[in-house]
Amino acid sequence: MPTYKAPVDDVLFLLNDVFHIERYANLPGFADASPDIVEAILGEAAKFSEDVLTPLNRVGDIEGCTRNADGSVTAPKGFKEAFRTIVEGGWIGISAPTEFGGQGLPMFMTQQVNEFMSSANLAFAMYPGLTQGAIAALLVHGSPELKKTYLPKMVAGEWTGTMNLTEPHCGTDLGMIRTKAVKQADGSYKITGTKIFISAGEHDLSENIVHLVLARIEGAPEGTRGISLFVAPKILPNADGSLGARNALSCGSLEEKMGIHGNATCVMNYDGATAWLVAEENRGLHAMFTMMNEARLAVGLQGLAISEVAYQNAVAYAKERLQGRALSGAKSKDKPADPIIVHPDVRRTLMTIRSINEAGRALVVWTALASDLHHRSPDEKTRQAAEDHMGLLTPVIKGVLTDVGFNNTVMAQQMFGGHGYIAEHGMEQFVRDARITMMYEGANGIQALDLVGRKLPKDGGRALQAFFGEVQGFIKEHGSDDGMKVFAEPLSKALGHLEQATMWFMQNAIAKPDNAGAGSTDYMHLFGLVALGYMWCRMAAAAQSKLKAGGNGAAERMNAKLVTGRFFMERVLPETGAHLARIQAGAASTMELPAEAF
Amino acid sequence: MPTYKAPVDDVLFLLNDVFHIERYANLPGFADASPDIVEAILGEAAKFSEDVLTPLNRVGDIEGCTRNADGSVTAPKGFKEAFRTIVEGGWIGISAPTEFGGQGLPMFMTQQVNEFMSSANLAFAMYPGLTQGAIAALLVHGSPELKKTYLPKMVAGEWTGTMNLTEPHCGTDLGMIRTKAVKQADGSYKITGTKIFISAGEHDLSENIVHLVLARIEGAPEGTRGISLFVAPKILPNADGSLGARNALSCGSLEEKMGIHGNATCVMNYDGATAWLVAEENRGLHAMFTMMNEARLAVGLQGLAISEVAYQNAVAYAKERLQGRALSGAKSKDKPADPIIVHPDVRRTLMTIRSINEAGRALVVWTALASDLHHRSPDEKTRQAAEDHMGLLTPVIKGVLTDVGFNNTVMAQQMFGGHGYIAEHGMEQFVRDARITMMYEGANGIQALDLVGRKLPKDGGRALQAFFGEVQGFIKEHGSDDGMKVFAEPLSKALGHLEQATMWFMQNAIAKPDNAGAGSTDYMHLFGLVALGYMWCRMAAAAQSKLKAGGNGAAERMNAKLVTGRFFMERVLPETGAHLARIQAGAASTMELPAEAF
Repeated sequence: MPTYKAPVDDVLFLLNDVFHIERYANLPGFADASPDIVEAILGEAAKFSEDVLTPLNRVGDIEGCTRNADGSVTAPKGFKEAFRTIVEGGWIGISAPTEFGGQGLPMFMTQQVNEFMSSANLAFAMYPGLTQGAIAALLVHGSPELKKTYLPKMVAGEWTGTMNLTEPHCGTDLGMIRTKAVKQADGSYKITGTKIFISAGEHDLSENIVHLVLARIEGAPEGTRGISLFVAPKILPNADGSLGARNALSCGSLEEKMGIHGNATCVMNYDGATAWLVAEENRGLHAMFTMMNEARLAVGLQGLAISEVAYQNAVAYAKERLQGRALSGAKSKDKPADPIIVHPDVRRTLMTIRSINEAGRALVVWTALASDLHHRSPDEKTRQAAEDHMGLLTPVIKGVLTDVGFNNTVMAQQMFGGHGYIAEHGMEQFVRDARITMMYEGANGIQALDLVGRKLPKDGGRALQAFFGEVQGFIKEHGSDDGMKVFAEPLSKALGHLEQATMWFMQNAIAKPDNAGAGSTDYMHLFGLVALGYMWCRMAAAAQSKLKAGGNGAAERMNAKLVTGRFFMERVLPETGAHLARIQAGAASTMELPAEAF
Repeated sequence: MPTYKAPVDDVLFLLNDVFHIERYANLPGFADASPDIVEAILGEAAKFSEDVLTPLNRVGDIEGCTRNADGSVTAPKGFKEAFRTIVEGGWIGISAPTEFGGQGLPMFMTQQVNEFMSSANLAFAMYPGLTQGAIAALLVHGSPELKKTYLPKMVAGEWTGTMNLTEPHCGTDLGMIRTKAVKQADGSYKITGTKIFISAGEHDLSENIVHLVLARIEGAPEGTRGISLFVAPKILPNADGSLGARNALSCGSLEEKMGIHGNATCVMNYDGATAWLVAEENRGLHAMFTMMNEARLAVGLQGLAISEVAYQNAVAYAKERLQGRALSGAKSKDKPADPIIVHPDVRRTLMTIRSINEAGRALVVWTALASDLHHRSPDEKTRQAAEDHMGLLTPVIKGVLTDVGFNNTVMAQQMFGGHGYIAEHGMEQFVRDARITMMYEGANGIQALDLVGRKLPKDGGRALQAFFGEVQGFIKEHGSDDGMKVFAEPLSKALGHLEQATMWFMQNAIAKPDNAGAGSTDYMHLFGLVALGYMWCRMAAAAQSKLKAGGNGAAERMNAKLVTGRFFMERVLPETGAHLARIQAGAASTMELPAEAF
């Protein structure tokens, strides 16, 4: 059975030593996130994730969800009780506004709690995670009345949320949505259609489920400009907030899928279901997109979360499994063989995963902090810079952290040899669970296209220039420091590759957009490597400061940080050159064959 | 439901136009492999794989194998009948010696048939595949009496075979084997112990199962020099060859695993089972290793096989699924959207997989042909060069084709978006099935170590020098040909990286073997890329010759070859530089942390 220990110390290092959250104490909610409060909350989340959610992970995988004859769905054993604990602890709303019953803490707190829960049990963590996504959409776009009816219940976790976008014939291309909405005399709508892949669409964890549904109002324009967003609850609330009649919507079936068996993936049928408009008519996609950044950040975090728990279990196995002798001579002479962690190829694997995880966590914290600045800073320039940061980094975090998170999980499984293929070790479940993160919330190819086609050129490239400026500034400031050279020089080279790739797109992709499309995934990963490399530079500088200041008992951890960072620079970052070469090859050989030749 | 079409034309191109098998007609068995016979056999294998094995693939995954109360195991529905067809067609023994009932055809024929069957149904193809492995071991190391008793039945497929190496506490490090063998007065042995991960260990496809078992004879030296190889049949044969008493061995349980559910992975208990020695006492590992090359080649082929069928299904989906519009303007204006094959990132994915598959198939054919030359050439120098080739390329084929085969399968699944995660499309099964190929028959880290630690230095680097010489010779011969420059120049650069990496090991790894260990996986992949690039050069030259000669109606296919080859050179091969950089980084940051810091 896999185990999990939440990396609380690593998070505290990031918050306190790398990103200095104490500097933001003037922002709303930040004063409540004092170091001791943060540590206490993270400690509680860690405990719950380690002790309650971790043991339920395999239960959920084996048992899965059950659709009963009446269309109700039963979650795996123990999920209901665990969810109740979350509700009682107020975990869903820790960053939600206090006026709706939340605790108003910064968003980075929610993201960190979600990392721990997703490491422990991804299928479970999706139930509160999707509810948070639905809360975010209603907060920005819901009418005061909708907010009043739904948000307190959802923030408390009494009611959960879902997002209904995909239909059998359309996923990425939402302009083809066919689900219909017909306006009623009382201002409500009747919704009819079928939605697929609806995570947490039906279950027994909460007394009500609030579905956010994209549909087309009768007579709306074709394509993406005719899509509206609705809220359709499973059970209609009475005027006093109590639960009333069952709405005309139901789970038609559960999907048989590769993993996340503990989460109910539903086909949802809407048969004239009563619904209310969220945001304006025909502005549904726009409304969905405003919540997309945070949802995508959350999925990137899931990739990291599985990579982390898989790493921890690979480490434990590598320390325990005896097989062969070290190349440099036997290390455990009293034993029949050495633990496999002595083997360089095993260490290379573990160091690769670890060096990506630690930088990935930094990237998420840095960006979650930008989300907070965007929503809470009193300064318009700061808000705009933070929004630029969010927009630019979100597809990178989603696409890169899930791609490398999955690869890392596969590498961690590989450390077990044949035992990694056997269910009881739990490693193969991590691989199956991690796989979905590359697909949902916009498949990673779409993230790459969003980055290259939308985020790079946006506002004349303002966000990109700010990112380049920040990284260059850091290199300039620290590059001449002896201890930092091993970090700054490789980063400078990698940044050069990213700048060249950007320049190549500017020169070659405007007339021939296929040149951008064919290079988009490589560009996203090149960008991701530079961003992770920059995080390593920030962490290395912080670790060195801390060591100089005496280490506060953290000298070993800080030294390990520096070694891990060096490993990243030497062993992971060199990939940027290959990405650049592929981008500069252009689209010719990619696009030349006629479709029939495939 | 996934479909499959065996790439017969591609195989014929390799055999006839690239490797010119007609040149070897003087070798035993090759005369029988005339172009029309080869085409007929491949056509039959294709038909059987497409029509019979493909539909059984998902059945096998869903149903799995069942262990009954009496310890017997029932294979999934339809497997028994399909296996009967294989037996009746004589497929298992097509390359086995005629004196034991085989057809004596070259080994490349068996490998190709196995590719088709593994694409269609990996779990099924393992049953005949393991039998072929056991035949190979008995052919080389069995006494005349053992051969006479077992080989005719196994070559016919009436009896199947297994390999019993792994024990709970040892996989890679077979020196720790504890299974005991005690010599009996009649010259036989009694074997006692537990073996795990025994593929096809128990099933109902054949009337008898012949287990090859590694065990330690009482009083044998410790470690790898005290291991012997035995044959222990499930049912003891009588003197007349008829089936006698049940042997004291049984399947204790089936493993719950990630994939290949249609193949029974058994825990095998030996309780004083009667067995006979194969090869000399204490030379069991040596005997196992002589069959290892072909078994590992076969597993490399499995990686390719799944990548191929996953590719084919991704292509079909990409041509059919309508979503979005081409960046260069709508292509299917009469439809609500374009098929996704118009999108550059989709094509990049498909071209990547295709370019690796076609070169991978060439690499396997080339090496299978070396296996034939090694076993059948009358010329000692040819035999030795072929053996060198086999030894050097086997770990590369096993390690690289299964790593990239798995990655390709994941990429093919990704083309389906969320639908790829749903079981009914079959793509997630391919991913789960492909995963085992990286682990069994020596985990890929072990392949890398075998390549760097054993195969490179062997005989003063003779095999490596011959490989370098052949590739350099080809570049010299064709590099100045205008049409070949786009192939030869990138290959020359990649070969330079491989030479530099080799030199770096010579200079840095002899005193510090960790430098070799930390770079071994990168070296294996670097080597693989050069070998695949060389195959592309050979194929490009053959395609150009064929086009010059008028194409024989194959002009479109040959043009597609050239485009695919160019894509490989531009988009896949540049990875060699990153591998070199990682190797040259050395082991310092990899090995620096103490184990407790993980």
